[in-house]
Amino acid sequence: MELGVKEYEKRLKKYIKLDIEEVKDEPLPKRLSREEILKHQRTEEKKIWEKTDKNAHIIGLDLAGKQYSSEGLAKKIQEFENSGISKLNFVIGGTLGFSAEFKESAHMLISLSKLTFPHQIVRLLLLEQLFRAYKINRNEPYHT
Amino acid sequence: MELGVKEYEKRLKKYIKLDIEEVKDEPLPKRLSREEILKHQRTEEKKIWEKTDKNAHIIGLDLAGKQYSSEGLAKKIQEFENSGISKLNFVIGGTLGFSAEFKESAHMLISLSKLTFPHQIVRLLLLEQLFRAYKINRNEPYHT
Repeated sequence: MELGVKEYEKRLKKYIKLDIEEVKDEPLPKRLSREEILKHQRTEEKKIWEKTDKNAHIIGLDLAGKQYSSEGLAKKIQEFENSGISKLNFVIGGTLGFSAEFKESAHMLISLSKLTFPHQIVRLLLLEQLFRAYKINRNEPYHT
Repeated sequence: MELGVKEYEKRLKKYIKLDIEEVKDEPLPKRLSREEILKHQRTEEKKIWEKTDKNAHIIGLDLAGKQYSSEGLAKKIQEFENSGISKLNFVIGGTLGFSAEFKESAHMLISLSKLTFPHQIVRLLLLEQLFRAYKINRNEPYHT
């Protein structure tokens, strides 16, 4: 069985209401000056921000974010539930990562790895870990 | 395009000779005593060790291993090449991780994430990062 995004979407939907929004990549200029990088980032983040649920707890996935173990992440999600935070909006950044402004606006930054992965793989990792977290929090066995 | 294991296998084979070996999962007893865990681990590791290339540099993927950035991992692989280490054997552990003995036998332990992922996803992450590392070391642009 291919353990892809579709599979974990299906599995997670047993536990939560899941919406996945995608913004179109901004074309990245070949040679980047600092101004061009910031401009590109702002354009991309504006589109991301428009899709972000302002009523949700916004969690940015960022290399500089906090690293959790699977059990730690599950516990964190349980804490959110316990304190009445029912909507989580995870944001995967663009090619250049988040601007300082975006990081300030997010409620929390987490890091899945020190390594950089394509955003499709980051999405897969996030979905699998959320699925695992709900399994852990319900004391259900996890079979891959 | 589905960025799966097959895709990265194909891409990596442009750069290196790649062999993937898999050992069959040992059935895990329902209730585990410490002795049963160690027994299970030993049986699994024996099978893994049989498939391990003793002439290769053995790198175990372990939660307790060293974390690298993508650039850091690329640099490490370059260092191996520069010092004449041409064969790398990455080992993804079983359900229970590696025994102390296995960790001692490996030349190096690296950690892709503090999170626990199914081994199929770990394989995907490893292949993608190796592909990325060869791209970085050749100064080639990386398009996902």
